[in-house]
Amino acid sequence: MTGNIVGERFVLVSFGESHGKCVGAVVEGCPAGLKLSEEDIQKDLDLRKPGQSIVTTQRKEGDVVEIMSGTFRGYTTGAPIMAMVRNEDQKSRDYESLVSTPRPGHADATSKQKYGGFNDYRGGGRFSGRITATFVMGGAIAKKLLSETLGIEIIAYTSELGGLRAEKFTLDDARRNRYSNEVRSPNPIAAEEMRKKVIEMRGKGDSLGGVVECVALNVPAGLGEPVFGSLDSDLARMALSIPAVKGVEFGSGFASTRMTGTQNNDLFRMRDGRLLSDTNNAGGVLGGISSGMPLLYRVAFKPAASIAARQRTYDTAKGEEVDLVVPGRHDPTVVPRAVPVVESVTALVLADHAIRGGFITPVLKRVD
Amino acid sequence: MTGNIVGERFVLVSFGESHGKCVGAVVEGCPAGLKLSEEDIQKDLDLRKPGQSIVTTQRKEGDVVEIMSGTFRGYTTGAPIMAMVRNEDQKSRDYESLVSTPRPGHADATSKQKYGGFNDYRGGGRFSGRITATFVMGGAIAKKLLSETLGIEIIAYTSELGGLRAEKFTLDDARRNRYSNEVRSPNPIAAEEMRKKVIEMRGKGDSLGGVVECVALNVPAGLGEPVFGSLDSDLARMALSIPAVKGVEFGSGFASTRMTGTQNNDLFRMRDGRLLSDTNNAGGVLGGISSGMPLLYRVAFKPAASIAARQRTYDTAKGEEVDLVVPGRHDPTVVPRAVPVVESVTALVLADHAIRGGFITPVLKRVD
Amino acid sequence: MTGNIVGERFVLVSFGESHGKCVGAVVEGCPAGLKLSEEDIQKDLDLRKPGQSIVTTQRKEGDVVEIMSGTFRGYTTGAPIMAMVRNEDQKSRDYESLVSTPRPGHADATSKQKYGGFNDYRGGGRFSGRITATFVMGGAIAKKLLSETLGIEIIAYTSELGGLRAEKFTLDDARRNRYSNEVRSPNPIAAEEMRKKVIEMRGKGDSLGGVVECVALNVPAGLGEPVFGSLDSDLARMALSIPAVKGVEFGSGFASTRMTGTQNNDLFRMRDGRLLSDTNNAGGVLGGISSGMPLLYRVAFKPAASIAARQRTYDTAKGEEVDLVVPGRHDPTVVPRAVPVVESVTALVLADHAIRGGFITPVLKRVD
Amino acid sequence: MTGNIVGERFVLVSFGESHGKCVGAVVEGCPAGLKLSEEDIQKDLDLRKPGQSIVTTQRKEGDVVEIMSGTFRGYTTGAPIMAMVRNEDQKSRDYESLVSTPRPGHADATSKQKYGGFNDYRGGGRFSGRITATFVMGGAIAKKLLSETLGIEIIAYTSELGGLRAEKFTLDDARRNRYSNEVRSPNPIAAEEMRKKVIEMRGKGDSLGGVVECVALNVPAGLGEPVFGSLDSDLARMALSIPAVKGVEFGSGFASTRMTGTQNNDLFRMRDGRLLSDTNNAGGVLGGISSGMPLLYRVAFKPAASIAARQRTYDTAKGEEVDLVVPGRHDPTVVPRAVPVVESVTALVLADHAIRGGFITPVLKRVD
Repeated sequence: MTGNIVGERFVLVSFGESHGKCVGAVVEGCPAGLKLSEEDIQKDLDLRKPGQSIVTTQRKEGDVVEIMSGTFRGYTTGAPIMAMVRNEDQKSRDYESLVSTPRPGHADATSKQKYGGFNDYRGGGRFSGRITATFVMGGAIAKKLLSETLGIEIIAYTSELGGLRAEKFTLDDARRNRYSNEVRSPNPIAAEEMRKKVIEMRGKGDSLGGVVECVALNVPAGLGEPVFGSLDSDLARMALSIPAVKGVEFGSGFASTRMTGTQNNDLFRMRDGRLLSDTNNAGGVLGGISSGMPLLYRVAFKPAASIAARQRTYDTAKGEEVDLVVPGRHDPTVVPRAVPVVESVTALVLADHAIRGGFITPVLKRVD
Repeated sequence: MTGNIVGERFVLVSFGESHGKCVGAVVEGCPAGLKLSEEDIQKDLDLRKPGQSIVTTQRKEGDVVEIMSGTFRGYTTGAPIMAMVRNEDQKSRDYESLVSTPRPGHADATSKQKYGGFNDYRGGGRFSGRITATFVMGGAIAKKLLSETLGIEIIAYTSELGGLRAEKFTLDDARRNRYSNEVRSPNPIAAEEMRKKVIEMRGKGDSLGGVVECVALNVPAGLGEPVFGSLDSDLARMALSIPAVKGVEFGSGFASTRMTGTQNNDLFRMRDGRLLSDTNNAGGVLGGISSGMPLLYRVAFKPAASIAARQRTYDTAKGEEVDLVVPGRHDPTVVPRAVPVVESVTALVLADHAIRGGFITPVLKRVD
Repeated sequence: MTGNIVGERFVLVSFGESHGKCVGAVVEGCPAGLKLSEEDIQKDLDLRKPGQSIVTTQRKEGDVVEIMSGTFRGYTTGAPIMAMVRNEDQKSRDYESLVSTPRPGHADATSKQKYGGFNDYRGGGRFSGRITATFVMGGAIAKKLLSETLGIEIIAYTSELGGLRAEKFTLDDARRNRYSNEVRSPNPIAAEEMRKKVIEMRGKGDSLGGVVECVALNVPAGLGEPVFGSLDSDLARMALSIPAVKGVEFGSGFASTRMTGTQNNDLFRMRDGRLLSDTNNAGGVLGGISSGMPLLYRVAFKPAASIAARQRTYDTAKGEEVDLVVPGRHDPTVVPRAVPVVESVTALVLADHAIRGGFITPVLKRVD
Repeated sequence: MTGNIVGERFVLVSFGESHGKCVGAVVEGCPAGLKLSEEDIQKDLDLRKPGQSIVTTQRKEGDVVEIMSGTFRGYTTGAPIMAMVRNEDQKSRDYESLVSTPRPGHADATSKQKYGGFNDYRGGGRFSGRITATFVMGGAIAKKLLSETLGIEIIAYTSELGGLRAEKFTLDDARRNRYSNEVRSPNPIAAEEMRKKVIEMRGKGDSLGGVVECVALNVPAGLGEPVFGSLDSDLARMALSIPAVKGVEFGSGFASTRMTGTQNNDLFRMRDGRLLSDTNNAGGVLGGISSGMPLLYRVAFKPAASIAARQRTYDTAKGEEVDLVVPGRHDPTVVPRAVPVVESVTALVLADHAIRGGFITPVLKRVD
């Protein structure tokens, strides 16, 4: 019952429902002395919000964030930061018919089972992708903290969409392009192909999955606790907390299982006084601790469960199998909108570990 | 600094080092009234221990477990259960030369960085695969608890080794065969091929990776907390806590990213009063909560980092790049020995969630 | 840095500052299916709010609570419940002069030290008594949960104020009288004396301390975890989290230190099938676990630190000792307003332990 | 069910039973680089162990501690430190008769209720004072850490025993005398009176309670988290975790409830560049955060529950009230032996907060 809180020292509390009054976050443990305004959060929220392009759902969300506590005169105070967004434009009536007919691929049946039917099922309630807005609220604060204290930069992008890979690109391409095209591809040519495939699938009322790749630069060596608190453990946990995620891999990941040790080991080299390697099959994590190489991992998103097609389900009220057509507006793919979400969860984990490891102090500076 | 403890209600505390006096576990939160003896733990430890076959390291470990607290007259009392195994047969001298020359693919450099050089580096210390013996100690208790209260059965096996897949097998094959062959394959024919490849690779002084697939049967619908405490989040976290793991996927996993929603959605069907589905692309988890279908996930193991080949590294004492030949005995692959470890972490997570969800009570029965 | 969150299964997250936009609470882990409206919280908030009588500060606070998440159609859903109150009527200018002159008995100096000067010092910020409104928000939910599931009733009252004891009263007197007089005494005659003393002290610009005694009825035997998670440990921790509290004692408490074992031991007796005792020197807790007898403990409140008298302090800007007259409106005593706060923290701890012990299930009932 | 683990960054896991194989502790989160040997722990354990004098129980316990993990070449490694003591000299047969007749003042009935009768009841099992040996194991490590990094010194002593107060003594007296007399009094004259009273009470087969006062010097200003994680909250929680403790108070404590604000407020003064005060009614804690003044608090111990007198209880096997004479050897008072225990829990809390607040780093120094 305590799944809505995560982190040990930089803690995110997530609350709110898809069609309730609001979604919001409490960030507990943010050091005092970080310059922070609503703008810092709003710009990341804007990257996540729907209705930005033809490839995502047409639901319009204003998503104007308000910081309600934890800052004073433009700086964080060390007290809990509560930020929230009021919901608008929910067509709740769309969902009333779904109470007894769980949508395939959704949490309708499992959430009803778990909460005895008391859960707010409208739009998926707590199980909606909408709750990732709260990850972004916390993540935006974490990003700014990491950037200003350690110079960490986090870059995620759509590396694969509907089986199409974004190949041949540099990290600089990714940095420049990912938020300049509708599919968040690091490569404009791949972006155009992906876009076409999304539009084609939208026409068919079907959906696509994909892979978001995430890189974090300037992560110092030494982040991550041993065993169960390892950096990759916590990143994996957070990645799987994002709705529609079905897998995660670090560095060479699943491909490493088909390599030999000779092929996969990253050989050490000293560069500018830091112990690095030419390859990065480890994805920047050795023994669960950051190695000083870029953090690199990939997150697998299944095709969006909401499709226009008629699907078989079971009507618990009628007591029979029925064909269901899911009403409402849907994303043909959640992958592009997930890109800032993956960046956010990465930032949350890194901020937590940076504080746990003493890389960031509880007070950033002192004033009088 | 608190990475050696995991779980909320069924908690595992892991301690000990590869070449220290012992490795051990404290299990906190095990309900009172479970029949438990050393035998229950020993049989799982025996499945994990090295020296069982030509495909794994020849290090001999007695690994005789002793329960030191938490049981009385053959039953758990509700108090913390401490179990430990004394270490023997460590050739510590092998490792002295490695202090200044980190082994590629190992945590030597990152652990030294993190602990300021005070870490027990012998055999990897806390970062050795040896610590998974403590996972198995806790997991054996969790397994017995799950089996006796909910009838849950956990079956893991080597589904892929060095690129060779164990295809065409039933769950019954897996149940029967996995611990009957050296590579823990569900399919004896695949087992023989895998075995040959391991021996070939051992001859070359190189190593192989692979995939362990894990199924849990009779998991009731409703296990898993929302968002950050979801069942798949916690399983992913635990899987990535196993040394050498580089990825995890649930159900259709990474393959789902190349499917459409129509292909990937599992359509509901009522069977024997339970809402199930014909396919299981979700891997038994919807919205982070168990659906009543079998739990199904896969864990990617990189090829063992310890290889006989000469590898470049950096000698921090000499201040120059050197070629290193790693001494000691090594597994050409860790995958077969990882099979009981994956079962163990699965059991630990399921036990924790079963207690959190009220599926298992703090006291199993009452005596007078 | 994570002191604003408490509880394991029934979790309170407290946020907000005395003179910020709001104070609020997130309750995580409240079972699904509890009927809950703003009224349930408002009535307890009204008991805590200032401006109710001449014995407390004249600051007017509307304190209108709004539930922002976690309920649906009048029932809790199992999702986090966020409730908040917008602040009004703060005269922030009063406090600007205090930045460099810490008020004796207040947290001005320690909070500035801890947060590097970034803390919101207006009205004490996070260290104001105002934050106990968030305890009451969470406590009101816990109270209702305990009442509806286990029939637990929590009754606190001012047992001592400025050295005057409320003697000779029954629990029924306390139940009837405590919220019918300004000082929350269980005994109207003592109430009148206490009231006079408060008014006298107000006239002098000085302040009084006192003791709040709290009884919880119908607490089932068996609540409380062993050792560090004992019921009295958690109650003591929560009591000391209330500003101005300097001590706590259970049952015969400090008086027991001057008794002999023969005098202090409660002898067992079977009554209506329950193992009880005639005396309750243990305060309803044996070995940290509820015994089935009424829970009974006392909380010591120091005299309010804000007094009208001229007091010496050190002006860090001027670099010299100065005489300070604290501006603003003050309570001559915080004890009467603390009564509902003590009830609230008691409810929070009992709810947490009732869920941890399996006395309350995650879903109260099922609907279709 | 998770009450046997405490702390956030310096974590104590306590295991073992009074008459089981051992009692032991895992300390998780101790920084790397602390010189530590069994001697450091043994000397504190020796202060706690029984059989030292005529005023305590005659049970002989060797209590030889063995460190099983977490150190390497005489220094802590950052890995979990497991330390344990094997039990000896238990006369378990003494307790068999008590299964159905709960001893007044003991946890026999509540523990049986909580664990369904599976608890190890011999000698109180997990509810025995014997488990405080595990507090001392962890506390000894914490003490050494605090001493070597921050110069913190912790001094506890028997300030009151059986109603007799140790008056007129300096802190230096306490430092010098407390472990030089059987009752751990800071004042030799009071010690002699207390000793006589204990012997008198032992003759009567009755027992005495008392108060342990604890001072910590050189605690830097700024330790303690806000609200629920305050320094006094955590100290109160830990104090109440010690068996037989019924109350705790800080600074002027319960006496402050009968003072006025003018009397109780500590006025600030600058001394040697530190903001201090002449009086210390706050006990070194303001707003839950250490103020830079000495930490000062008192712990109330009830008279030992085990007395020779015939007491009424209820025999659940016979179904009737019976008179019970508790067999076994007993302390006429636990207070003297509790002195090192109170020091230990103080050290555990301070170490945890010192790490949380960044006052002690995860690595004390670096070696190569």
